[in-house]
Amino acid sequence: MTNAALLSHVDHTLLKPTASWNDIHALCLEAVQFKTASVCIPPSYVEPAYRTVQGAVRVCTVIGFPLGYNSAEIKCAEAAQALAQGADELDMVIDLGAVKNGDFGLVRREIEQIKRLAGERILKVIVETCYLSEAEKIQVCAIVGDAGADYIKTSTGFGSAGAVLSDIALFKKHLACGIKIKAAGGIKTREVMEAFLEAGCERIGSSSAVALLKG
Amino acid sequence: MTNAALLSHVDHTLLKPTASWNDIHALCLEAVQFKTASVCIPPSYVEPAYRTVQGAVRVCTVIGFPLGYNSAEIKCAEAAQALAQGADELDMVIDLGAVKNGDFGLVRREIEQIKRLAGERILKVIVETCYLSEAEKIQVCAIVGDAGADYIKTSTGFGSAGAVLSDIALFKKHLACGIKIKAAGGIKTREVMEAFLEAGCERIGSSSAVALLKG
Amino acid sequence: MTNAALLSHVDHTLLKPTASWNDIHALCLEAVQFKTASVCIPPSYVEPAYRTVQGAVRVCTVIGFPLGYNSAEIKCAEAAQALAQGADELDMVIDLGAVKNGDFGLVRREIEQIKRLAGERILKVIVETCYLSEAEKIQVCAIVGDAGADYIKTSTGFGSAGAVLSDIALFKKHLACGIKIKAAGGIKTREVMEAFLEAGCERIGSSSAVALLKG
Amino acid sequence: MTNAALLSHVDHTLLKPTASWNDIHALCLEAVQFKTASVCIPPSYVEPAYRTVQGAVRVCTVIGFPLGYNSAEIKCAEAAQALAQGADELDMVIDLGAVKNGDFGLVRREIEQIKRLAGERILKVIVETCYLSEAEKIQVCAIVGDAGADYIKTSTGFGSAGAVLSDIALFKKHLACGIKIKAAGGIKTREVMEAFLEAGCERIGSSSAVALLKG
Repeated sequence: MTNAALLSHVDHTLLKPTASWNDIHALCLEAVQFKTASVCIPPSYVEPAYRTVQGAVRVCTVIGFPLGYNSAEIKCAEAAQALAQGADELDMVIDLGAVKNGDFGLVRREIEQIKRLAGERILKVIVETCYLSEAEKIQVCAIVGDAGADYIKTSTGFGSAGAVLSDIALFKKHLACGIKIKAAGGIKTREVMEAFLEAGCERIGSSSAVALLKG
Repeated sequence: MTNAALLSHVDHTLLKPTASWNDIHALCLEAVQFKTASVCIPPSYVEPAYRTVQGAVRVCTVIGFPLGYNSAEIKCAEAAQALAQGADELDMVIDLGAVKNGDFGLVRREIEQIKRLAGERILKVIVETCYLSEAEKIQVCAIVGDAGADYIKTSTGFGSAGAVLSDIALFKKHLACGIKIKAAGGIKTREVMEAFLEAGCERIGSSSAVALLKG
Repeated sequence: MTNAALLSHVDHTLLKPTASWNDIHALCLEAVQFKTASVCIPPSYVEPAYRTVQGAVRVCTVIGFPLGYNSAEIKCAEAAQALAQGADELDMVIDLGAVKNGDFGLVRREIEQIKRLAGERILKVIVETCYLSEAEKIQVCAIVGDAGADYIKTSTGFGSAGAVLSDIALFKKHLACGIKIKAAGGIKTREVMEAFLEAGCERIGSSSAVALLKG
Repeated sequence: MTNAALLSHVDHTLLKPTASWNDIHALCLEAVQFKTASVCIPPSYVEPAYRTVQGAVRVCTVIGFPLGYNSAEIKCAEAAQALAQGADELDMVIDLGAVKNGDFGLVRREIEQIKRLAGERILKVIVETCYLSEAEKIQVCAIVGDAGADYIKTSTGFGSAGAVLSDIALFKKHLACGIKIKAAGGIKTREVMEAFLEAGCERIGSSSAVALLKG
């Protein structure tokens, strides 16, 4: 796979709390130059990023990030502001406490609401696999599909572990047809990126892919 | 024009503050039966209406209604909740105070934000013509088009007057190509409905059209 | 009663959709000069009004106004923005559709939430008496008290009728101890103002009281 | 210092993303039993916690947590929902990106807005010292005081380091009179707790203090 082909699957990402506008601006320019799938940035920078890239790359931001325990109403408010400011893609974290309470109905409803709000814009649902049992992972696969999300995403990058290949296989087995997969968290080499793409991921979240592959 | 053809242009509307769920439920069933363009209802009823009609008719609600002086942030929050609950169309009132302050930039920005939020869903912009001078009407025509709205709409039905034919002619002259027109407020007879459609309106907001034409 | 005493009970009010900042600014200066109880203005003007009066008069705004059929979440969002921008008092309209549906629990919850949000700031609950039966008026008296509101308020000024003295008597009979009464809508003479105060109202909403009494 | 005296300064805290209601419920009961200063929990659990403790202990939740890069509007929406659901105290994270951009005006405004919204309820401002230079720490001390917050708080517990004693000394030197200090992050022994209190902290955020001191 060529570098360009690899980069077309990358959400070029910077989600550190201390990221400055200079950092984000540089990230946006790289994303445009190297034709990544999107630029994935904090919500506070969506508006200037949208003005900077002017449609040359998709703008992605995060919702309920990274802990997931905001209410559905607040996640909707975050999503609404991001969409009104120009976001093309939303990566939302599910309510992991609700998963632990066995309240999968709540998780389904929060995803359905955000997807209805997003309309044709892409919604990726971060399930933070490092905190889920295998049974919980299988249940969230069903919910993500039923609720109409576009992607399931493995990890925030702020949990105790990132993406692992065995979870991609599990997702492929249990996801409804048409739901795509994004792997994120700890993916730092070309070999690992290729392994996740070959395993069936459509997108890779990475803060280092461009630096790695632009040469 | 047949009754069915006329009704296909009607937003079947009930926006009285005292409307009960029984009233709205009946309105939804009529809208489905008589194939109106949409059912136009208070925001508090979007969720049950969406579950009732199950896609058989478009659900429309109102934003910043009827006085228009909520902030852009609140209008976005209202729009977001409506979209998350299943609304297909949004009829928003512009900030008329901003028009009077000459702050057309504010009006443009509030429309742009709601349209970006709405995405492919229909946005109609209510300019409440009864309170505008001719010069103000011409300026809002330009702004509605620039901001990417789908429709300009004459009136809320709660102002000092409703739609008048001379405003439709003015809109046709000054609106950018592709922006449609909805007339609302005080349209109560078949003859008046036909006159507004012949003048170039695509939609008619009415609470009485179905009762009038279903026979 | 002296003019000054009368004015100390007046919420000096301008809620027309076309009010300009010049209008509101003048209203604020009058409210300060004539020491009215508050200045009552559209939400879009709370921030500049707060900066203008700098604590010299209380700033009051309206929530869910005038139709009342926004959801509790949107009313909370409106209240939050108003409080964050400096409002001291909130006049919220109840969900009249819920009253007609017999869902008094919903009305109680929306008032409770706004009052908890408001904390020590004053909450007035507009019940729009012109649309209520006597039985409904008695039930909302109970709910307004239980929910912890500071005031019941008769009318928006945008309904089919404004305050009537017989409703004040009904409120006095059915309200819990400590809940105050604001009369608004159509109060235009000194005699009528005095009659409402003598009937037991603590506040009068009026757009004309200052012009009437400042001489 | 007795155990009870120590516990009266503790915000009994559980902010893990996977905390279940059983976990939070148990935490609430402990907080009541051992008379901690508050129970500090995720926003998704404020409503049931408030109903559980019924005023027997103060309910504290987090805003813009833990990364701080939500907009002021979203932080206000989070704060509003928490207050409407019964929260007594808010621990909000500042926009650290704005600090890195040198935009201290933005940080001041977000704190001012949340404090005006909170009214008499307690606002603690988390500045995440592990990511700040000494000059930045001194500047945020000035801003927190000017903006009217009740407390400065060292850390989220999710950053690269928690509270350190030298920061408390720095705060004491640079904070305006009357602003209190909360230390949080990595405080796990009685000795360390006492050291922070002796250094001038009024509150300690801890998930282990009750287990440690209840014996």
